Amino acid sequence: MATIQLYYWPTITGRGEFIRLALEDAKYPYKDEARTKEGLDEMLSVINPTAESPFDIPPLSPPFVFIDDLPPLAHVAKILFVLGPRLGLAGNNSETERALINQLQLSVSDIVSEVHDSHHPIATSLYYEDQKVEAARRTHYLVNERLPKYLSYFERILAKKTANVLVGDTVTYVDLSIFHLLCGLKYAYPKAMARIEAYIPRLLELKRSVAERPNIKAYLASERRLAFNENDLFRHYSELDL
Amino acid sequence: MATIQLYYWPTITGRGEFIRLALEDAKYPYKDEARTKEGLDEMLSVINPTAESPFDIPPLSPPFVFIDDLPPLAHVAKILFVLGPRLGLAGNNSETERALINQLQLSVSDIVSEVHDSHHPIATSLYYEDQKVEAARRTHYLVNERLPKYLSYFERILAKKTANVLVGDTVTYVDLSIFHLLCGLKYAYPKAMARIEAYIPRLLELKRSVAERPNIKAYLASERRLAFNENDLFRHYSELDL
Repeated sequence: MATIQLYYWPTITGRGEFIRLALEDAKYPYKDEARTKEGLDEMLSVINPTAESPFDIPPLSPPFVFIDDLPPLAHVAKILFVLGPRLGLAGNNSETERALINQLQLSVSDIVSEVHDSHHPIATSLYYEDQKVEAARRTHYLVNERLPKYLSYFERILAKKTANVLVGDTVTYVDLSIFHLLCGLKYAYPKAMARIEAYIPRLLELKRSVAERPNIKAYLASERRLAFNENDLFRHYSELDL
Repeated sequence: MATIQLYYWPTITGRGEFIRLALEDAKYPYKDEARTKEGLDEMLSVINPTAESPFDIPPLSPPFVFIDDLPPLAHVAKILFVLGPRLGLAGNNSETERALINQLQLSVSDIVSEVHDSHHPIATSLYYEDQKVEAARRTHYLVNERLPKYLSYFERILAKKTANVLVGDTVTYVDLSIFHLLCGLKYAYPKAMARIEAYIPRLLELKRSVAERPNIKAYLASERRLAFNENDLFRHYSELDL
């Protein structure tokens, strides 16, 4: 097992966390490269549009990873699709299960983008403070329409299952991602989630069971797991949590 | 070759067009199911959250497709990843090329979502007219920051190539998607694109070469190709094109 090199912003959980949780759960050897000064500089040079890239197809933005001899891979869902079988987190590894897990992961990516845009509805390049009015308006629809739509979709899938996992009979990487999504949403919107959680009992049970997995439990207690903060993807602003 | 069943909103090009272009280019037998009343009703029942779904993992939203014996597949990038080799549009079909094509397609999906949110920055459930002020503000950043970022990224990739295609030596589905993206952007933001096009000569050449492919040319001249309109993903509002 060649060590996997993960590149992601060093001070936030962000999109990198979905990759990190899968690697930690599998106890797969990996290095969080950008948590050192040199690694961070390297990451910045790889994504710098004005620098000459050593790669034919450079990643557009973090997270990206180096796996075996593959070129750098970007996009959370793509990375997890490729990593999944290597980590034993892609169900029975059939084309069908791999496709379905990936498909659900893409919906997780979609929610994550909507969560991001709720505190940045106008531009990523502006501060939250410069788009607070629009953020409040957008977040209203996020918590009242979008989160219920997505979360009840996942809940309905669990309702058809015997094993309380989204695809197949065992925990896959998308279950780990759902765990992190629910943690992030609870952090960002505690009041709204208290309402929503009333009708997603199976997802909450899945969240609890993932938190109890020994490798995840050890990871969450370690200093490798960063605390949520207001530079992160999931942000708590009391004025947005109604 | 079993006929592929495609389900997508019948009156817009939208996200379905990325799938349609690949199928048309390959002359693969497919049926645009939701263009009949029965098919549309069927699509609506499949994505209806309150209806009992016949699928363990139903699609969350269109487009979705039925390919061979696979369960319904959703998400443009996922559908194209699975269809690509069947259509001869996935380069040399190696794990590496398939991963890279898919990765670039995911960036296309990201731009497409940003384009959508530029006319709907607050909520998909509201009319454009109810979020015009925010749309104008967001679109400013879209055309001045986001489109240049994404399009110059693709341009830089072409700059390293001998063949003017994004991955490998032959046209793949992501090249077809880039064609549609550039058509849509030109329709929506003719003034802004006139500025941007000055520094994406290779992408424009790729767009021209895709338009000349015989099956694409025939498709574009057919009535199967819908005209852009203001219910679509790419919308032209003169007040947003500055």
